[in-house]
Amino acid sequence: MKSLFVIKIGGNVIDNDAALASFLDRLASLKSAWILVHGGGKLATELSARLGIETQMVEGRRVTDQATLDVVTMVYGGLVNKRIVAALQARGLNALGLTGADGDCIRARKREHPTTDYGFVGDVERVGVERLLSLIQSGFLPVIAPLSHDGQGIMLNTNADTIASEVASALASYRIAESAVHLVYCFEKQGVLRDVEDETSVISRITAHDYEGLREQGIIAKGMIPKMDNAFAALRRSVSSVVITNADSIGRLEQDDIGGTRIVLS
Amino acid sequence: MKSLFVIKIGGNVIDNDAALASFLDRLASLKSAWILVHGGGKLATELSARLGIETQMVEGRRVTDQATLDVVTMVYGGLVNKRIVAALQARGLNALGLTGADGDCIRARKREHPTTDYGFVGDVERVGVERLLSLIQSGFLPVIAPLSHDGQGIMLNTNADTIASEVASALASYRIAESAVHLVYCFEKQGVLRDVEDETSVISRITAHDYEGLREQGIIAKGMIPKMDNAFAALRRSVSSVVITNADSIGRLEQDDIGGTRIVLS
Repeated sequence: MKSLFVIKIGGNVIDNDAALASFLDRLASLKSAWILVHGGGKLATELSARLGIETQMVEGRRVTDQATLDVVTMVYGGLVNKRIVAALQARGLNALGLTGADGDCIRARKREHPTTDYGFVGDVERVGVERLLSLIQSGFLPVIAPLSHDGQGIMLNTNADTIASEVASALASYRIAESAVHLVYCFEKQGVLRDVEDETSVISRITAHDYEGLREQGIIAKGMIPKMDNAFAALRRSVSSVVITNADSIGRLEQDDIGGTRIVLS
Repeated sequence: MKSLFVIKIGGNVIDNDAALASFLDRLASLKSAWILVHGGGKLATELSARLGIETQMVEGRRVTDQATLDVVTMVYGGLVNKRIVAALQARGLNALGLTGADGDCIRARKREHPTTDYGFVGDVERVGVERLLSLIQSGFLPVIAPLSHDGQGIMLNTNADTIASEVASALASYRIAESAVHLVYCFEKQGVLRDVEDETSVISRITAHDYEGLREQGIIAKGMIPKMDNAFAALRRSVSSVVITNADSIGRLEQDDIGGTRIVLS
């Protein structure tokens, strides 16, 4: 294979049946090899609420107690993952769903933090690159849920943006001489916006230097900060390109201009 | 590979943490290639109850409406499957969890019945034998949840005993000249019992002729009937042997006598 795309699809798209179907239609039209990483969407929060489990967030990250771990394992690893896999199979693509435990694809360690106990949250330690590549070479298209495991039998909750960045980075480091690995963050917006209220205010290119300024001005804030950090981390670890773009732009992935915001080191 | 074992582990063992751990320890000691099919256990019924979804059973089979389909997709495909996969990975085995949708491993059609609407229940149409074998040849150990898909994007609920029988039969038909496929039903009892209250009353061997008599006498009844039917169906489709035995007997799988009840055509 020439280029390999690691594509992350965000929770807001997953929550919208029509938007998800449109994204999957476009994904099915691609000729290149890809790995899809999906977010969780609101379903886990909704299920937790129905079960009377309180959802606690610290700095945009869910605190994962045992009950919440069971919920995200069910929703991300079961419901959402299988919904996407079945929908891709219906489009003639040989999708295969994975969590980090499956084939030991994503090994993580439980997060240790001096002041906050995040519970069953995993920081990625190792991506099973050879196993992912062996699946791709056998004709499977991996669809990865935002779950890792600790290798000791415990599932862990890991941010989907981070999983996408880690998978792309590990593949890029492994295959560096052979071909390019591209990371694409797809979500409901058109890209990184200068004005969050204005979908036409897409910033077409952001360097590491620009990023500093945009953060200081508060133009890049909240959930976009870890996404940008993940984007730069991938570029520093040999990923060829990173784009943050609208889910519907995925059909133009193999063209020169996919639109959205291109992240570059300099 | 010489022999290939298709092993089904029942829900009552899955519901018991210590029994499941003991079974997985023994499974990890085997040298032969295997595919594990797991049942659902009580967790789906419990989750349905907590969510206020009524569980309707007809002739021992769950009627699967949309809400129940979501529950079993979450519990079987997410929670139970990943718990087993993570536990096997902790034991050094390269387990990989699958539903029928993953890699199109088990294609089914929605059951049509003249008088009862079973809802989203699937009767197996086709097992993706080449894909399962390609996973095994790549070093993965498939762990299959009792879920199929219709190829049109819909997940379907399929009995785990049936999935095990269908997978073993498809593998046996495919690989007939090459090697033997064995089907092993593991559960919490010692085998098929002449007296359900007496664990020492194991019937060591049941032929098709014996089965008729045992059914007429009511010795084989209820949930054991579809299991026996699945066992005979597998034997008629070239599976080399079928045994119904205790989960802890799995450690003796590669010895001549695994104990329990051996099912034979004549």
